[in-house]
Amino acid sequence: MTPLHTDDPRNRPAHPSGERQYVLTLGCPDDTGIVAKLATFLAEKGGWITEAAYFTDPENNWFFTRQAIRAESVSESIEELREAFEPIAAEFGPRAQWRLWDTAELKKAVLLVSREGHCLHDLLGRVAENDYPMEVVAVVGNHENLAYIAENHGVPFYHVPFPKDAVGKRRAFEEVAEIVNGYEPDAIVLARFMQILPPDFCEMWAGRVLNIHHSFLPSFMGARPYHQAHKRGVKLIGATCHYATPDLDDGPIIEQDVIRVTHKDTPEEMQRLGRDAEKRVLARGLRYHLEDRVLVYGNRTVVFD
Amino acid sequence: MTPLHTDDPRNRPAHPSGERQYVLTLGCPDDTGIVAKLATFLAEKGGWITEAAYFTDPENNWFFTRQAIRAESVSESIEELREAFEPIAAEFGPRAQWRLWDTAELKKAVLLVSREGHCLHDLLGRVAENDYPMEVVAVVGNHENLAYIAENHGVPFYHVPFPKDAVGKRRAFEEVAEIVNGYEPDAIVLARFMQILPPDFCEMWAGRVLNIHHSFLPSFMGARPYHQAHKRGVKLIGATCHYATPDLDDGPIIEQDVIRVTHKDTPEEMQRLGRDAEKRVLARGLRYHLEDRVLVYGNRTVVFD
Amino acid sequence: MTPLHTDDPRNRPAHPSGERQYVLTLGCPDDTGIVAKLATFLAEKGGWITEAAYFTDPENNWFFTRQAIRAESVSESIEELREAFEPIAAEFGPRAQWRLWDTAELKKAVLLVSREGHCLHDLLGRVAENDYPMEVVAVVGNHENLAYIAENHGVPFYHVPFPKDAVGKRRAFEEVAEIVNGYEPDAIVLARFMQILPPDFCEMWAGRVLNIHHSFLPSFMGARPYHQAHKRGVKLIGATCHYATPDLDDGPIIEQDVIRVTHKDTPEEMQRLGRDAEKRVLARGLRYHLEDRVLVYGNRTVVFD
Amino acid sequence: MTPLHTDDPRNRPAHPSGERQYVLTLGCPDDTGIVAKLATFLAEKGGWITEAAYFTDPENNWFFTRQAIRAESVSESIEELREAFEPIAAEFGPRAQWRLWDTAELKKAVLLVSREGHCLHDLLGRVAENDYPMEVVAVVGNHENLAYIAENHGVPFYHVPFPKDAVGKRRAFEEVAEIVNGYEPDAIVLARFMQILPPDFCEMWAGRVLNIHHSFLPSFMGARPYHQAHKRGVKLIGATCHYATPDLDDGPIIEQDVIRVTHKDTPEEMQRLGRDAEKRVLARGLRYHLEDRVLVYGNRTVVFD
Repeated sequence: MTPLHTDDPRNRPAHPSGERQYVLTLGCPDDTGIVAKLATFLAEKGGWITEAAYFTDPENNWFFTRQAIRAESVSESIEELREAFEPIAAEFGPRAQWRLWDTAELKKAVLLVSREGHCLHDLLGRVAENDYPMEVVAVVGNHENLAYIAENHGVPFYHVPFPKDAVGKRRAFEEVAEIVNGYEPDAIVLARFMQILPPDFCEMWAGRVLNIHHSFLPSFMGARPYHQAHKRGVKLIGATCHYATPDLDDGPIIEQDVIRVTHKDTPEEMQRLGRDAEKRVLARGLRYHLEDRVLVYGNRTVVFD
Repeated sequence: MTPLHTDDPRNRPAHPSGERQYVLTLGCPDDTGIVAKLATFLAEKGGWITEAAYFTDPENNWFFTRQAIRAESVSESIEELREAFEPIAAEFGPRAQWRLWDTAELKKAVLLVSREGHCLHDLLGRVAENDYPMEVVAVVGNHENLAYIAENHGVPFYHVPFPKDAVGKRRAFEEVAEIVNGYEPDAIVLARFMQILPPDFCEMWAGRVLNIHHSFLPSFMGARPYHQAHKRGVKLIGATCHYATPDLDDGPIIEQDVIRVTHKDTPEEMQRLGRDAEKRVLARGLRYHLEDRVLVYGNRTVVFD
Repeated sequence: MTPLHTDDPRNRPAHPSGERQYVLTLGCPDDTGIVAKLATFLAEKGGWITEAAYFTDPENNWFFTRQAIRAESVSESIEELREAFEPIAAEFGPRAQWRLWDTAELKKAVLLVSREGHCLHDLLGRVAENDYPMEVVAVVGNHENLAYIAENHGVPFYHVPFPKDAVGKRRAFEEVAEIVNGYEPDAIVLARFMQILPPDFCEMWAGRVLNIHHSFLPSFMGARPYHQAHKRGVKLIGATCHYATPDLDDGPIIEQDVIRVTHKDTPEEMQRLGRDAEKRVLARGLRYHLEDRVLVYGNRTVVFD
Repeated sequence: MTPLHTDDPRNRPAHPSGERQYVLTLGCPDDTGIVAKLATFLAEKGGWITEAAYFTDPENNWFFTRQAIRAESVSESIEELREAFEPIAAEFGPRAQWRLWDTAELKKAVLLVSREGHCLHDLLGRVAENDYPMEVVAVVGNHENLAYIAENHGVPFYHVPFPKDAVGKRRAFEEVAEIVNGYEPDAIVLARFMQILPPDFCEMWAGRVLNIHHSFLPSFMGARPYHQAHKRGVKLIGATCHYATPDLDDGPIIEQDVIRVTHKDTPEEMQRLGRDAEKRVLARGLRYHLEDRVLVYGNRTVVFD
């Protein structure tokens, strides 16, 4: 018996209301009239806006927007629309960054795991239930024990052992990179992958690597955050989904959440409770990423949820 | 000794970042090009948009927006801007509803109370701390025991006793209406006012009367919700801020929140705990209302928070 | 490749700190001296209490307790301890109810499902990760589409189709009962099983059937709660884990939680968001049940969390 | 007109159900039989236990308990009961610490404030509403601007200016100490008092000084936590109620909570939002302290809520 999602995911809309959308995201220096230009462009194409949000960062004087348009209201293909938008975008200056995404193009993700499988179970379960806008194209693990989960979901599993020495580790990372790059994924998810990504990998995959950190950053950076939390006697523990950057545990935060603990909770019990927060925060943060709801600036994010 | 806010509130911006804004809200039948028209209008006036959000209700095909513009980016006065916008709004059809608000025009509120003072303490404390965008112009109570709170904050208190008989009650309501209408308030807040507003009063003040209901509606409508909650053995209790309508406890919900309770909590303890939820939910819901963040359609609300 | 939990679960302690415990739960008419009797009994056996809680319901004058003792501190076996406790319990009157559970006796659960698999994925994922105190002995479904999940986890799946007519339905229920009773489970979990349990089944399995209801009860009882919630325009939706009783949706509540929704969320989107609440609430409520943390009285529960 | 609480607070029960209680708290080295001894002692006095909780810290092998007894079930006065308990407590070793509190003895608090009044408004409002178990005997401020709040509630306000130089500061602290010590308060509350307590003051008032820190400790220790939070781009901000110790921001945590923020929130907006968390966390943490629900060990707390 096979999972539910054997139908071609291309046929499925990413939008939960079942409606195919074109999603435009843009970040550029702020100025009067940007919204008017965007809106006029979309109106001229017949674009029916179903969801839109703007934000201007007053400190950096930067403008951000995300706009979702009913795909069927536009006669152009997504490629034609992209081409037509290019001269508009040029008016917003050379530093403007934009994307136009057709929600029918299901995003591809590679998951990197270690020994703990709760996030892997959770994400693959969501995909199997047909309510998560991604296709998991591969799982890479530095241990073998989670292979069965991937296999049960019909996803290829790659076992890449990580030796302890620097040279061996580097080679292992290169092997991982080769696998990952072969899939051209939209998201590389460190789903409790306990290896620190080398800086050049962070840069190679900039804006595509999401990590789930098992603490409420910036509290308890580094190793064994639940033990640190227990030692400090905090009354809430948390989890943080962030983009991986060369500055460890300091990448732009996408999503966070906390759960209540008490004096009764040992570090082991906090680990168990924390897994729930990790699953939830990763699932939410990754969804925002996949739906083009996150725009990064410096080490901060705009999240149009 | 007098409260902190003796300076003229007109000098104070309602926006927490200290910036004076013009806020445009609009609801109208959805169509392609509305955003373009709005944005072009604002761009032509030089309007610098700092915050904007749209929403289209697919069921009713209705379009909603709220846009905040830096006041100083526009050379027109708010009256001139309103006049200039009139023909644009006309293009959106006869059913379109819009407002243009200058955040320097501090909103006026009348608070209606009974015996319990926690919401009154909370709201007046917020105003005294200068972080709440309203001026409390009067407090009306059907008991005298809360008069001292209003007086301590330099707010006139009106005592209107409510007899038990229908005729007396009606007369009392008319007296309240006379007081309230004299102030032309932007918000009439039932801050634990335990009298049911007659239907014609709901209509007279439609869209301006906010009630705080001490349950997570639609659970435990009617009287003594904490006792109902205790009897049912729920694990969360809540509070609901909603617009008062002739359908008791059924008006459009603006904001809700809950708190956790356990088997240990008696109805009295739930009342005590619930007061915190009531204060918080009323303060949030009322702020949304005062900042023109709430648009009503049917018995639902769009809240651009 | 097989799941992680191929080791004999009997070897695994249910307590997250890895410590085997004897857990005593007792409900009886309240009186002075009960705690002294219990504590003296446990002290005489050398019992080292690691966690204990009491509660007296003042309305019904009923006493409840749960006490966890380090198993290794007691020389008696659990059977000997049970026997020794019998005369003590007798002193608390004929209506006293008590249990003595050895956490090394892993609890057995049968899961009943329909078409939606998110709760099934979640519970089996938790068990596979070795952090959930139960053994899933069987899954019964009235559709076949979730069979693959059970099979992937090495759990037998029984397909029992439910016809629409009353006689066929009754027969199907009897078939389910035969399967379920064959396993003598400690918990029968309606993991989004969309059939209403007949009253005599509720009674046969009283105190062992847990349901997850996809609303914040008592709001939106009955069918399609997310559609009801959308129509009412609530700002929070929730889920409720409760014991099934003949009074539909009115059984004793074990656990509840809510999540925030906005005007943007369609009923379909609420369903998607709500699944997270359902998974979390069911997992927590079921854990409380499995760890003997729930004591029922009337339609209320004491939960010693 | 005067506040509601002009009746003698001695007449009011601290327990929300209106029932007068004797509350026993004990911390001592763990051993078998402690509970039996305690329970037997209470049973012999006829003590009707209404609420009780135990906890054993496995790391430090320390036992903690809090037990609430219906006062009317015991014929002894609280002094007689204390005397009778002394030899029992002695059996638990020289390091045992215990208290026996009659809830009719309303706890006394001195509040230390600076310029921001939200916590002062909140706490005095709660007391005025008769639902907070304390008497505020004095407010001390290093600025004058909050004097009116204290005066409105009929509480004496002491203005002690704090010079910038070390000698002047020390003298100011000594003046504060003289005022505070004159009241023999059960709680000294730093309600956004922006001065760092000297180490010898922390020790003099050990276990009685509660601080509200405007961050989710240990994140953003030190100055301007909301600005730090904004800079780091966190998605949740929080507040922490903790006992003040010579190690700044590192005292035992009693209570914490968080609220959600977004990219739209400036540091000033976070300050405004954060005030709600501060008020709530301080009110809860202080209540736990006043109701003898907090037992400290090392830099951690047991909170029997």
